[in-house]
Amino acid sequence: MEFDTIAAISTPMGEGAIAIVRLSGDEAVDIADRIFQSPAKKQLKDVPTHTIHYGKIIDPDTQEMVEEVMVSVMRAPKTFTREDVVEINCHGGLVTVNRVLQLVLKHGARLAEPGEFTKRAFLNGRIDLSQAEAVIDLIRAKTDKAMNVALGQMEGRLSKRIKRLRQEILETLAHVEVNIDYPEYDDVEEMTHNMLIEKASYVRDEIEKLLSTSNQGKILREGLSTVIIGRPNVGKSSLLNGLVHENKAIVTDIPGTTRDVIEEYVNVRGVPLRLIDTAGIRETEDIVEKIGVERSRQVLKEADLILFVLNYNEELSEEDKKLFEAVKGTDFIVIVNKTDLPKKIDMDEVQKLANGHPIVTTSLKEDRGIDELEQQISSLFFKGDLQADDLTYVSNTRHIALLSQAKKAVEEAIEGIEQGVPIDIVQIDLTRTWELLGEIIGDSVHESLIDQLFSQFCLGK
Amino acid sequence: MEFDTIAAISTPMGEGAIAIVRLSGDEAVDIADRIFQSPAKKQLKDVPTHTIHYGKIIDPDTQEMVEEVMVSVMRAPKTFTREDVVEINCHGGLVTVNRVLQLVLKHGARLAEPGEFTKRAFLNGRIDLSQAEAVIDLIRAKTDKAMNVALGQMEGRLSKRIKRLRQEILETLAHVEVNIDYPEYDDVEEMTHNMLIEKASYVRDEIEKLLSTSNQGKILREGLSTVIIGRPNVGKSSLLNGLVHENKAIVTDIPGTTRDVIEEYVNVRGVPLRLIDTAGIRETEDIVEKIGVERSRQVLKEADLILFVLNYNEELSEEDKKLFEAVKGTDFIVIVNKTDLPKKIDMDEVQKLANGHPIVTTSLKEDRGIDELEQQISSLFFKGDLQADDLTYVSNTRHIALLSQAKKAVEEAIEGIEQGVPIDIVQIDLTRTWELLGEIIGDSVHESLIDQLFSQFCLGK
Repeated sequence: MEFDTIAAISTPMGEGAIAIVRLSGDEAVDIADRIFQSPAKKQLKDVPTHTIHYGKIIDPDTQEMVEEVMVSVMRAPKTFTREDVVEINCHGGLVTVNRVLQLVLKHGARLAEPGEFTKRAFLNGRIDLSQAEAVIDLIRAKTDKAMNVALGQMEGRLSKRIKRLRQEILETLAHVEVNIDYPEYDDVEEMTHNMLIEKASYVRDEIEKLLSTSNQGKILREGLSTVIIGRPNVGKSSLLNGLVHENKAIVTDIPGTTRDVIEEYVNVRGVPLRLIDTAGIRETEDIVEKIGVERSRQVLKEADLILFVLNYNEELSEEDKKLFEAVKGTDFIVIVNKTDLPKKIDMDEVQKLANGHPIVTTSLKEDRGIDELEQQISSLFFKGDLQADDLTYVSNTRHIALLSQAKKAVEEAIEGIEQGVPIDIVQIDLTRTWELLGEIIGDSVHESLIDQLFSQFCLGK
Repeated sequence: MEFDTIAAISTPMGEGAIAIVRLSGDEAVDIADRIFQSPAKKQLKDVPTHTIHYGKIIDPDTQEMVEEVMVSVMRAPKTFTREDVVEINCHGGLVTVNRVLQLVLKHGARLAEPGEFTKRAFLNGRIDLSQAEAVIDLIRAKTDKAMNVALGQMEGRLSKRIKRLRQEILETLAHVEVNIDYPEYDDVEEMTHNMLIEKASYVRDEIEKLLSTSNQGKILREGLSTVIIGRPNVGKSSLLNGLVHENKAIVTDIPGTTRDVIEEYVNVRGVPLRLIDTAGIRETEDIVEKIGVERSRQVLKEADLILFVLNYNEELSEEDKKLFEAVKGTDFIVIVNKTDLPKKIDMDEVQKLANGHPIVTTSLKEDRGIDELEQQISSLFFKGDLQADDLTYVSNTRHIALLSQAKKAVEEAIEGIEQGVPIDIVQIDLTRTWELLGEIIGDSVHESLIDQLFSQFCLGK
């Protein structure tokens, strides 16, 4: 394919040591040559691919020097976009990098839309759609595990499985076709019937396997929405602080970053907890009291996990029991806090009300019990043996929706076969399964969907 | 010189398309080789300098893939630091780039201190101290003009003038030395006297020329602290909004950035206005009322420019007169607003109170007068003919202080010569002038000062 030449600032905005203006397209090198001046008077069009060159950016109209730069020239097809790519590596100032961008735009490039570089990598066939989507997941990853999921997907692990499944369906369809066209053999109908059941079941099982990872995958990707509830003074703030301090807010271990960046995420043994209304809890000490029980039920419903704090030193109140009602239907962990004080709570009754949900006793004041709580959170999330790092997690909502639809289609096919519906009706369901799976990797995807997907990217990617 | 190998993330924190981990030092390539795997199994130690290589970052301990990267290898001495430099170009995620940094640190690099890369460029003799300081100015530049000043300084424009002056002093001193040592000629004393006066005066004049740009230079670099004052309801918020909207808050013209970044700066015809207590004015509509006249006097004292708003439609009040008292001693512009309403103010009295300071009449409601105000701000700042873009502005507080001291020293030398003090005393003053000028470019600068200077840099620069 052939496109115009695009350009954008590809580093995050802010004061940094390096800022990069990236160009991609047939004219990338020509445009760079118009504003680049090397001390040795060399032209970028003459340099070998994948080389770096020192020089100055000069405004051709005024002959004014704009920046001192290092320019990387990478020619198609071994580039991110499979087009000619030029990266102009500037000192990290906002004003200068903007001046360089403006010059590049003035001399023939068009400002890239968000995600347009990655979109070109997709449109030029370097990566498929699910790989492209993984690029943005990688950028937004909150934990190492989430990063691994995105990396796996970017490497094409999900794509490979999807492609294999589609191949399977295609072969089955072809086989059926042949058998229908040559019905002169006796046992065609039975063979077709059996083979179809077998193949379709295999496809369904594989889709189910993928879907079974989606809950974990989605949480790894988006974080586990977590709400801390409990009556006033049971220790909700202490719990929050305990979780935050024990685990460092995510990405704070990058030297030089401030905590504020993504402070709402806490990395609990690889599980990113997104503590909802964190600020609220800190300030009001009581989300339930503040917003009323009715409204809080709504918040609770949207949570993936509720940490429900009780007071070891008080009897269960009516309010506690109401809260037990409110958390029904959501994953919750009961935390009986203040074990440093005399026991007044009826643990048998707690056990009964918890109804199988985990119970942890803590003394947050004395720093006891947090470890156990984290263990519970982690095992609640990583149910069973799904913890292997090399698993192909399905994490993207779009993929999950498509897989669910594909599963439904293949199930309809199976049902059809079993009920003896005509084979060409079954074919329709299988074809639909094949198409739905194709949408995951970007085969037969509508252009407007592609636009929308890539618009979620940051500028310059 | 030889140093250990340092590493840091050299792009701003945040979600971006590209994040770079930069290494500098003898071991940079070796360390990168330990964690880099190219599809063609090539080793970075074997590649030519200034080339770019695609591959993966692999944790050697776990064989786990950490990132898909482009690695730039640049060997000494043609690099930013004059050492071997490796840049690992990652997808822009916080977690992944941090993982890459951690790996690099684990395999032999040390985390760089803020500014340490630039410091090495200085210590290795690629740039002098004033050029190094210009790098940080460039990054922080708020306007094109400020950028040009920083670029000029980075190119060594200031350094050249300083070096020329020092050379002049050195030659003079040498000449005097010779004359003292060979006093067998008759007219030595007189010659020495005359030459000394001439040379020292030249040095003083040159220093004065440089200092004369310092006010503008400093404002270009740091912005003009601007306070808007006036009684309630005279139109202070409208003025603020007018200035912000007419001129775009600085850097908002970078596509994709939000205004919030540096909204406090407004670029008025190349002059960066830093609007103090902007939020305060917006919310309270009256800084003076809010903080009391006494306290506001303090704020006013620290301002470089006061925009003092009066109401065309009201008579001058006692409060207005108090404010005229308060602004004495600072640059201020009187803005008589609401000319769309009938005139009630006594303009003669305003003129008298303004005492030569500029007066602008506006109707902010009808969008009139803002242009004239901006003209006034600009001409107040760019007094006289100092507007040429190629002027060597002195903008750095440290440089200004050193120049002032140098000026004092050379003036003392001149005074000494005129009063006939012994030539070796004069020599001391001249030597001191020479030393002070040397400190600007980093000759004979104390190590702790260097450490402190570079610590102002951002990480990774």
